[in-house]
Amino acid sequence: MEENYQCESKTEGKPIRCKAAVCRKAGEALVIEEIEVAPPKAWEVRIKILCTSLCHTDVTFWKLNAGPAAAFPRIFGHEAVGVVESVGENVEEVKHGDRVLPVFNSECGECRDCKSAKSNICTKFPFSHYNGMPRDGSSRFKDSNGMDLHHFLFVSSFSEYTVVDIADVVKISSDIPVDKACLLSCGVSTGVGAAWKVADVEQGSTVAIFGLGAVGLAVAEGARQRGASKIIGVDLNPEKFEIGQQFGVTDFINPTYCSQKSVVEVIQEMTDGGADYCFECIGLASLMQDAINSSRPGWGKTVVLGVEMHGSPLSINSGQILRGRTVTGSMFGGVKTKTDIPFFVKKYLHNELNLEGFVTHEISFQDINQAFDLLREGKSIRCIIWMDK
Amino acid sequence: MEENYQCESKTEGKPIRCKAAVCRKAGEALVIEEIEVAPPKAWEVRIKILCTSLCHTDVTFWKLNAGPAAAFPRIFGHEAVGVVESVGENVEEVKHGDRVLPVFNSECGECRDCKSAKSNICTKFPFSHYNGMPRDGSSRFKDSNGMDLHHFLFVSSFSEYTVVDIADVVKISSDIPVDKACLLSCGVSTGVGAAWKVADVEQGSTVAIFGLGAVGLAVAEGARQRGASKIIGVDLNPEKFEIGQQFGVTDFINPTYCSQKSVVEVIQEMTDGGADYCFECIGLASLMQDAINSSRPGWGKTVVLGVEMHGSPLSINSGQILRGRTVTGSMFGGVKTKTDIPFFVKKYLHNELNLEGFVTHEISFQDINQAFDLLREGKSIRCIIWMDK
Ligand SMILES: NC(=O)c1ccc[n+]([C@@H]2O[C@H](COP(=O)([O-])OP(=O)(O)OC[C@H]3O[C@@H](n4cnc5c(N)ncnc54)[C@H](O)[C@@H]3O)[C@@H](O)[C@H]2O)c1
Ligand SMILES: NC(=O)c1ccc[n+]([C@@H]2O[C@H](COP(=O)([O-])OP(=O)(O)OC[C@H]3O[C@@H](n4cnc5c(N)ncnc54)[C@H](O)[C@@H]3O)[C@@H](O)[C@H]2O)c1
Ligand SMILES: [Zn+2]
Ligand SMILES: [Zn+2]
Ligand SMILES: [Zn+2]
Ligand SMILES: [Zn+2]
Repeated sequence: MEENYQCESKTEGKPIRCKAAVCRKAGEALVIEEIEVAPPKAWEVRIKILCTSLCHTDVTFWKLNAGPAAAFPRIFGHEAVGVVESVGENVEEVKHGDRVLPVFNSECGECRDCKSAKSNICTKFPFSHYNGMPRDGSSRFKDSNGMDLHHFLFVSSFSEYTVVDIADVVKISSDIPVDKACLLSCGVSTGVGAAWKVADVEQGSTVAIFGLGAVGLAVAEGARQRGASKIIGVDLNPEKFEIGQQFGVTDFINPTYCSQKSVVEVIQEMTDGGADYCFECIGLASLMQDAINSSRPGWGKTVVLGVEMHGSPLSINSGQILRGRTVTGSMFGGVKTKTDIPFFVKKYLHNELNLEGFVTHEISFQDINQAFDLLREGKSIRCIIWMDK
Repeated sequence: MEENYQCESKTEGKPIRCKAAVCRKAGEALVIEEIEVAPPKAWEVRIKILCTSLCHTDVTFWKLNAGPAAAFPRIFGHEAVGVVESVGENVEEVKHGDRVLPVFNSECGECRDCKSAKSNICTKFPFSHYNGMPRDGSSRFKDSNGMDLHHFLFVSSFSEYTVVDIADVVKISSDIPVDKACLLSCGVSTGVGAAWKVADVEQGSTVAIFGLGAVGLAVAEGARQRGASKIIGVDLNPEKFEIGQQFGVTDFINPTYCSQKSVVEVIQEMTDGGADYCFECIGLASLMQDAINSSRPGWGKTVVLGVEMHGSPLSINSGQILRGRTVTGSMFGGVKTKTDIPFFVKKYLHNELNLEGFVTHEISFQDINQAFDLLREGKSIRCIIWMDK
């Protein structure tokens, strides 16, 4: 049904009144409100969201009640797929009716980083403005009292319509089912990208993944596709092992039951001295540290993907890192959104990337708070939130 | 004169009485004492030291007065060149009269790491035993009361004779002058290796080096040979800039005079957002952190070479590292001693590696404590300590 969706062009140039799930205060349930979405300005695209899902980064910022990134009232959501409703001046890359992913990691295409194959951190649109639009920090959302609502990570997909900069829009084929496409808008692309582009996992190597949410499982899938010989999953939730196996996880460590030995020691034993690649996909500094210490001296690489939940610094034993260990942090798994996401779509369509199994729940937009409960309780991997159902 | 040195074979198999500079207590002046050096056991080599020099790592451990690495009385020194006096059973790689470098970073040639091109951290001889011989932790030195003296970093070159495992011996050509060879036994190889092997500095790139001692200057030399376009040196000692220029340092920052802006901000401005490669060559966690923050988001690589003086952990802002930055720690600059040091010697002999200028002072063995003063006061880069003068 969604596949044939055509949005009405009659709204072009006018504000749209629609429903959004507004977060009025840190940690409080979202409220479905009627809001007004301004027409796209120059370089902007207004998107009708088809479905969105909840990534742990939403939860982290939803809880945050201090600092410049704690901006309320706000419309969360940054993993989604939609259809272009209308475009602002200068936008030629997409047009009304195109299937698109809004993404938080910008690709302006013009800066030194966007032009280099080595970077996916656009210098033109850094994260300093992500409570609003990337170019000027202003908002396109008003509540029913005419008050501005803050954006989130340049996307704000918990709304029937949103406005996104063209640097944050990826046009994709409509051959991929909507829910699978949605996954590629953040978590799964991040995990697969981390394995393929950042770590560049080699055939026969050993991998340890801290946290088997969508990001960690996508790392496993990426590592499996590369022929890793051992993929160790570390998670407090025992249910994650069963699902992990679907994505190539071969061994499971539950820190709760590591009483005699530390997780680090267990991994060192399982891998003859340390894993070739470690990935932190939770967002806790102490586990980033464990990941590093679990990596093999000499050539072990640790990729940090987790967004530290408390903003704590990562502390590394200076003697441990000196033994030839490497740590890389990565936004969006090193993925250059406009180039790499369409490549991932192709991989999926050619059965070279497994996207089955990530979607564990589906709900309708009005029940969005359930998605928060499911993720926080560790029951869901990804819960698809359908806007039209 | 040293070039024609031949050691007497008549000592083979017997203990040798000779002079060594013994450190009896952390932070105290070394004392020249008569000691006894046991004959080499199986897999061991007894070396007559021609000259040695002082590296900052000696100073760091000389000051250390607690923990398992604080072992006194001890014979320090790990940057040296010598001649094989005799060899123990099973040693075929070198023989009496060969010119060799004793090195702290072992290469057994058989372990997974030694066999891999990716690692220089031998798993057979990790650092756990470095107060004694690598295979069993025991000592080959006795003082005049017959008490054992501790080794340092498998080398202990502040002695006319020392015993070293064959895994820690590199045979070199005698075409290279003795003092230049000595430099390659630790600091200079570490710096050049870090630039060539760990960072793999690209032509036209920008480099920031924290600390312009022998290690930092060798990084500069390595980066210059690779065609770096800008090499920024950071040092508290203004005299380091002049010498830095000899090794390709193009810009100098003295943190003392950075009042308006932090060193990080200054580097970011000089490099349009951050240096492509940063190197920490001091040994202070706070500067490792500055180095990381001075590296460019997207692809900036930081190589940590400094041995943290207080054992403090390296603290990294988790948001900063997430922006595509990489940190690698490195022992001996990623150098595989037996393969790479002879290559560096060739580079020097072909005028593709500048080793002039590192030796700023030369003293005789009896004045060894002066070498400590010179390095600590920032007056020397490397002070060659001649055993026979
Ligand atoms: N770098 C990026 O671009 C990027 C992109 C997406 C998500 N993220 C971050 O990645 C992380 C994972 O996101 P997700 O959506 O997969 O989260 P998730 O909540 O689905 O998964 C996290 C997993 O970690 C486990 N876990 C929590 N605490 C643990 C502990 N102490 N020890 C062991 N396991 C523990 C949970 O049981 C869960 O399985 C989050 O920090 C998120 O913010 C980063
Ligand atoms: N990783 C390895 O294998 C390896 C090998 C050799 C040396 N090292 C380590 O490398 C470091 C450098 O050794 P070196 O022999 O070149 O030392 P050095 O003493 O010759 O040089 C250190 C330089 O740092 C400068 N400095 C000190 N404190 C500073 C500060 N707060 N800000 C700016 N500059 C400062 C000094 O002025 C000096 O020029 C030491 O930590 C040493 O232990 C490591
Ligand atoms: Zn996300
Ligand atoms: Zn850009
Ligand atoms: Zn040294
Ligand atoms: Zn080895």
